[in-house]
Amino acid sequence: MEAGPLSPGRRIISIVIKDEHETNVTERVSDYRPRPSWRTWLLGRSLATADAPHQTLGKAVALAVFGADALSSIAYAPQEMLVILAAAGATAFGYGFPIAIIIVVLLTIVTLSYQQTIHAYPGGGGAYTVARENLGDLAAQVAGTALLTDYVLLAAVAISSGVAQVVSAYPSLFPYRVALSVGLLLLIMLANLRGVKESGNLFALPTYFFLTMTVVTVGAGFARYFTGHLGPLTDPPLDAIKATQPLTLFLLLRAFSNGTTALTGVECISNGVTAFKEPRTHNAARTMVWMSGLLGVLFLGVTFLLGAIGAVPAESETVISQLARMVFDGRNLLYLGTIAATTIILILATNTAFADFPRLTAAIGLDGFLPRQLAYRGSRLVFSRGIITLTAIAALLIIVFQASVTALVPLWAVGVFVSFTLSQAGMTRHWWRIGHGQNQAGAPPADRAWYWKMVVNAFGAVCTAVVSVIFAVTKFRDGAWIIVLLIPSLVAILIIIHRHYNRLARDLSLDHLGRPARIRRHRVIVPIAGVHRGTLITLDYARSLSPDVTAVHISIDKAETERVRRKWEEWGEGVRLVIIDSPYRAFLEPFLEYVEDLSRQRQANERMTIVVGQLVPREWWHNLLHTQTAFWLRFALLSKKDIVVTEVPYQID
Amino acid sequence: MEAGPLSPGRRIISIVIKDEHETNVTERVSDYRPRPSWRTWLLGRSLATADAPHQTLGKAVALAVFGADALSSIAYAPQEMLVILAAAGATAFGYGFPIAIIIVVLLTIVTLSYQQTIHAYPGGGGAYTVARENLGDLAAQVAGTALLTDYVLLAAVAISSGVAQVVSAYPSLFPYRVALSVGLLLLIMLANLRGVKESGNLFALPTYFFLTMTVVTVGAGFARYFTGHLGPLTDPPLDAIKATQPLTLFLLLRAFSNGTTALTGVECISNGVTAFKEPRTHNAARTMVWMSGLLGVLFLGVTFLLGAIGAVPAESETVISQLARMVFDGRNLLYLGTIAATTIILILATNTAFADFPRLTAAIGLDGFLPRQLAYRGSRLVFSRGIITLTAIAALLIIVFQASVTALVPLWAVGVFVSFTLSQAGMTRHWWRIGHGQNQAGAPPADRAWYWKMVVNAFGAVCTAVVSVIFAVTKFRDGAWIIVLLIPSLVAILIIIHRHYNRLARDLSLDHLGRPARIRRHRVIVPIAGVHRGTLITLDYARSLSPDVTAVHISIDKAETERVRRKWEEWGEGVRLVIIDSPYRAFLEPFLEYVEDLSRQRQANERMTIVVGQLVPREWWHNLLHTQTAFWLRFALLSKKDIVVTEVPYQID
Repeated sequence: MEAGPLSPGRRIISIVIKDEHETNVTERVSDYRPRPSWRTWLLGRSLATADAPHQTLGKAVALAVFGADALSSIAYAPQEMLVILAAAGATAFGYGFPIAIIIVVLLTIVTLSYQQTIHAYPGGGGAYTVARENLGDLAAQVAGTALLTDYVLLAAVAISSGVAQVVSAYPSLFPYRVALSVGLLLLIMLANLRGVKESGNLFALPTYFFLTMTVVTVGAGFARYFTGHLGPLTDPPLDAIKATQPLTLFLLLRAFSNGTTALTGVECISNGVTAFKEPRTHNAARTMVWMSGLLGVLFLGVTFLLGAIGAVPAESETVISQLARMVFDGRNLLYLGTIAATTIILILATNTAFADFPRLTAAIGLDGFLPRQLAYRGSRLVFSRGIITLTAIAALLIIVFQASVTALVPLWAVGVFVSFTLSQAGMTRHWWRIGHGQNQAGAPPADRAWYWKMVVNAFGAVCTAVVSVIFAVTKFRDGAWIIVLLIPSLVAILIIIHRHYNRLARDLSLDHLGRPARIRRHRVIVPIAGVHRGTLITLDYARSLSPDVTAVHISIDKAETERVRRKWEEWGEGVRLVIIDSPYRAFLEPFLEYVEDLSRQRQANERMTIVVGQLVPREWWHNLLHTQTAFWLRFALLSKKDIVVTEVPYQID
Repeated sequence: MEAGPLSPGRRIISIVIKDEHETNVTERVSDYRPRPSWRTWLLGRSLATADAPHQTLGKAVALAVFGADALSSIAYAPQEMLVILAAAGATAFGYGFPIAIIIVVLLTIVTLSYQQTIHAYPGGGGAYTVARENLGDLAAQVAGTALLTDYVLLAAVAISSGVAQVVSAYPSLFPYRVALSVGLLLLIMLANLRGVKESGNLFALPTYFFLTMTVVTVGAGFARYFTGHLGPLTDPPLDAIKATQPLTLFLLLRAFSNGTTALTGVECISNGVTAFKEPRTHNAARTMVWMSGLLGVLFLGVTFLLGAIGAVPAESETVISQLARMVFDGRNLLYLGTIAATTIILILATNTAFADFPRLTAAIGLDGFLPRQLAYRGSRLVFSRGIITLTAIAALLIIVFQASVTALVPLWAVGVFVSFTLSQAGMTRHWWRIGHGQNQAGAPPADRAWYWKMVVNAFGAVCTAVVSVIFAVTKFRDGAWIIVLLIPSLVAILIIIHRHYNRLARDLSLDHLGRPARIRRHRVIVPIAGVHRGTLITLDYARSLSPDVTAVHISIDKAETERVRRKWEEWGEGVRLVIIDSPYRAFLEPFLEYVEDLSRQRQANERMTIVVGQLVPREWWHNLLHTQTAFWLRFALLSKKDIVVTEVPYQID
């Protein structure tokens, strides 16, 4: 330690500090706590990593939390099915209920398949996880991108449908539906950036309110139907769809495709098994059966009653609104209760997208297929970047498709059913492996029933694969083509990203690396425009790096150069000065040429550092009055090997 | 010199080079020649500083070069005077010729005044120079800003007037006049960025063509007038101004103000005395007399004839066009010749602005009142930044005022007459000083006639000051208020800029500076996220700077930290590692806090350097896949005293 011009007292303090900080090889410094700012006001105080909450849910509450997404589909699936049938007139409309029955059969098959996933993956078995563990990276990335498109469209559709319910009750809001949808989306984003805990309180009340209102509506509807009081729809919406198309098999398949949106969200529970109270697999499986049962019964009931009243699908009033006002005799309190419950559960359903999209991008990011930054948790412990990405894309979709559920649905279910298929296919492989003794962690040691379980999952996979194809073909021209093109493109991008990370990891790896060559010689170059106090500060710094310092002056004006030379003789302390004549008045180019010249003549293990003085002015606008040499130099030299540009900021005060 | 792992042959080359480059204290490296690029194609090859051309002009050619601006005002000054009178009807129109006579008297006074400036400043005496040398900085900056507004408006008005002539001949182009004007302006900018030499060839032909055509028009006009064949205007433009205002003194003064635009450009010659052949002051003074004489005669002639035909000022057809088609009996070849000559000389007049605006901003920049960068000559030896600034502002004016000369003129002449006034006031002071023995360089040793010369300039100053006030008052509401507010604001900005440069020069000065304190201790901090090949390159560089190196790891994930600690024991070479726990997952903030902590405990003369490894990926888009830590660190630490952030780029290939 050198003796500086300090009082003895201060010097001792300095020594004490050094003892504390520097004699240990490794030490731990006390922690940092963020200060409040405008972000605190908007998002709440920062949460420590250790604060990450973990709660377990009972079955009833879990049904509310995980069921909101699936159950909310009652609000749009029947409508979207009838939209297609309406285009072929009254006869076609009669096919609504039979198609609904087929969809409920499909729901049963999918539910049985996922029952097995829950038992096999007690740690949570989303399509991405199951596909990655059983089918490899490519299938996993296809499942991942399919799920990502699914979540984005879930957010866009659920919000649009929620706003459509509100607009049904208050038709004067119709022109503002896009703005309302985007505003609502931003509010949900903000809530999720603050961190919405999937707590029972938040979900249980609205979900059970919705279930109650729907059961009351369907119950009252059947009561009136059987007593002959459920009359045909009065006062139908003005923008009703007119019968213009013939009734064909293709049309029925299109209606079926739209109806399959009822199945979206069914897989949620298999993803969140860890959130259940013990015995968790048992409880999760039970809850899923209840959820699917409720969904199936209500879906059938609503579809039947819509047929009975002869509902008229339209953009300006949802069929749920039509059913409710026919059942409750007008827009009264019971009607408004039904609309409110439907709207709220749709908004809760959006939250599934906000919970799962960022989690999935983080997982894919950690696996190195998306930018790693997505796995970074923000100040509120949520994956902020994923939340913002989801919001941006969903908002774009809402704006482009004018918040129309009918326009958005054709983009949706392809992703859902592709992920279903890959998940079930993965499970089929899983059972096959168990049957052939290739057991994996998390699976029961030797499952005798592996063969029948494999058959169930294989059947599920085939069914959902067939639905995927039906959907992609029948809705291709309506918008499914976007997804059919998008998923492979996204997968390609993910693979390119993964290759970059892999290659980089290999290049940066220390395995099989001998000690890299040591720096033996360090040449320091200091470009100078004039000789002033800032130059001396820069020169002093340069001399502290290495004894081999060269100052370089680019000569544009001869008189100025002469002044620099004379001043250098006085102040340059014998450091050699190279003067480069620049007859074309360029500064950067001749300097760079000189540096590259020297660089070519370097020894092995020789490093070069360009030290540039940079005035830091008092006010930001003063920067306009000075050239930003260091910035351009760094930019020009960034790609040169073993050349470092150091900016020495000097503040004058 | 260390022995690197090189072949003996290469080592010798290396030594030879060092001998050449490093044993001298000062040396001169061979020059740099720019390579051709797209800029070469657009702007031409780079010119060496030594190539700066210098030519001297004979009187006839000089009249063309310096007279284009002044003479071109015949194209718009009569029109703008009549625009005002037309609003008060036919009686008022008769006042046009008497007002023109007053303006010619004013022209005579200004010419006499400037004759003396030419003799007193044989090195060139623009208003800025004369005001700075005789009246001090404030007056000089007022003159400077007045001239700058003058040049910008000259460019805007001359282009707009040129296009108005073309539109008069081809009325179908009227809707495109703004686009035409801006396009023409950009062409002129490009020509000036290439570097237009004020060569005789370029100017002489069009100027004398214009003079010829104007003399022919006026001559033929008078011939027809005296023989009674000059009939009243037929087929007047449809958008003619209607008589709506009473004839008042104020209106006559407004017409006079507009007419004074005839005087713009008269001062050019006094600015460019050095360009004349010897005896240069004599030749310059003679040329100026010729120029003013021609201008006065033609201005009077045109105004008289316009009154005789009862021309109708309008946006869609200029009065020059009306005069020409009446004199030449229709839109024939002679008519088109006159229009073409007028358009071309207006474009040449624009070039005066393009020559003088950048020169003036460069001069003001060198004096430290505008950004110094303005004094930097581009690859073609022109002040490129000034040229681009002028183009941008003039284009803005043309767009805002829809290329209307009538709308632009009220902004113009205030600046012109303020600079006339300050120039003449400066000359008055100059003569007074000479009379009182305070002689200056460049003035004749002891001028006996100083008193009368002072009286002439003082009279000129008073006259132009009165015109300034008349102009500012009568055109205030039409747009002069913009300039009345703008000039003081600009002057304030110039003074603030000057203060900044002055203060900085004082702060950076080496005068009265003892040797600044030497760096005694150099602490190097290396933030590390993981331990890989890039870390080792960064660490190696850090160790080459100073023996006092501390690696800092911000711990967000405990398992990751444990891995870093273990790897560090193997690869860290005993460099101390500080681990900072960050329970809130922030990276930058705890690191900055640690750095500031250390910084507070620094000794005098201790420097700190933060060395940050920065991966330079193969493709630019790879940057999206990595955090840009170094960038944010540098940004956060820029204002901290004596802390340097060094980015060590490592390329993996």
